[in-house]
Amino acid sequence: MSDEFQELKRLTGDAAAETVQSGMVIGLGSGSTADMATRAIGRRLAADQIRNIICIPSSENTARLARALHIPLTTLDEQPTLDLYIDGADEIDPQLDLIKGLGASLLREKVVATASRSVLIIGDYRKLVQQLGERSPLPVEVIPFAQQPVTSYLEGLGARTILRTRDGKAVITDEGNIILDCYFDEIADAGQLGQAVRAQPGVVEHGFFLGLADEALVAMADGEIRRLTRP
Amino acid sequence: MSDEFQELKRLTGDAAAETVQSGMVIGLGSGSTADMATRAIGRRLAADQIRNIICIPSSENTARLARALHIPLTTLDEQPTLDLYIDGADEIDPQLDLIKGLGASLLREKVVATASRSVLIIGDYRKLVQQLGERSPLPVEVIPFAQQPVTSYLEGLGARTILRTRDGKAVITDEGNIILDCYFDEIADAGQLGQAVRAQPGVVEHGFFLGLADEALVAMADGEIRRLTRP
Repeated sequence: MSDEFQELKRLTGDAAAETVQSGMVIGLGSGSTADMATRAIGRRLAADQIRNIICIPSSENTARLARALHIPLTTLDEQPTLDLYIDGADEIDPQLDLIKGLGASLLREKVVATASRSVLIIGDYRKLVQQLGERSPLPVEVIPFAQQPVTSYLEGLGARTILRTRDGKAVITDEGNIILDCYFDEIADAGQLGQAVRAQPGVVEHGFFLGLADEALVAMADGEIRRLTRP
Repeated sequence: MSDEFQELKRLTGDAAAETVQSGMVIGLGSGSTADMATRAIGRRLAADQIRNIICIPSSENTARLARALHIPLTTLDEQPTLDLYIDGADEIDPQLDLIKGLGASLLREKVVATASRSVLIIGDYRKLVQQLGERSPLPVEVIPFAQQPVTSYLEGLGARTILRTRDGKAVITDEGNIILDCYFDEIADAGQLGQAVRAQPGVVEHGFFLGLADEALVAMADGEIRRLTRP
């Protein structure tokens, strides 16, 4: 990644960490942008600018990073309601509806976001779209057993599907599932499409995050941070 | 289990196996009643009464049983469409809508049933109910990460939930998930309730099988096998 976008990620990560207050239960997102926020939270804790927070990581990767930063961690069993969830997104539309999942952690991310009183999304201007699906595929998490019938079903819904792989092998999520990246010509109604996708047995979750985000901090090309709220 | 019910299970298992024809792709259910059908299919194969069938097991347990019986097995990747699925059920209502999942294999069972042209349910008369939920809880399969928020959500829908355990430990499904058994006072609309349950992130599947069964073979107390079809 170019230094420019790395710097924009750092800016939004810092801005997100500034919203964290002492005593909060915080959900930590996953992926390179969310990691910037986690690092900034770690720095604020170390500098004693905030105290007595406790965090729930949305992936095994994030848990490792947070432990390395000495951020106190807990689970949803201990803290079923969170004050704030901070995460990146692959696409952000004008309603603050999102596509997430290019980092393959969408399932736990959605569970934690749903359990949070407030959801803050961070990213740079390239993530802003007019309509979901403009640039990103819709990631769909599927049990390996059901790969073939779910693929046929998604193609029946109009998707071109690609099994996500890394180094020639299927990417396996924290829950032991595969990801089918679904390319649709146009997504007219994300809510309806998400329901149809989720209805098929073997589908565990999809990457539409609708009505979940309350606020977004978006870094523009000139470094300005634009604050967007759900209309 | 008493000999009487064991005998009724054997009768329906035999009757189901009689419907299997040479050349078919068959889905094998899970649980003690479905096992009777799998054993009867194995006997018919061994006696050369049917040939050239291939089967897809709906659980690791069923796969082990089928292998022991020398029943040829395949996967949904190889055979995405099945001719016939045979399985038991916990409850069967007059529309042949079902509750399944007391055997903890509901997820793969539903995937295989959905991929089958025809679904045949077997059981004894105790499984017949006027309304789903009369006697059985609704099993809900959940990722362990989301146990607490999903429990709260299901309680919000009116359920009393019990984490399924065996020997003091949580039962873990073939997909690594837990089962929450949900007791509702009354289930007025299983379709609506199923959608609400499935909508919650962290819920992987539930035990309502609606509109999936085409036929049921039910052993009555006197040993008569009653054939029911979906109205």
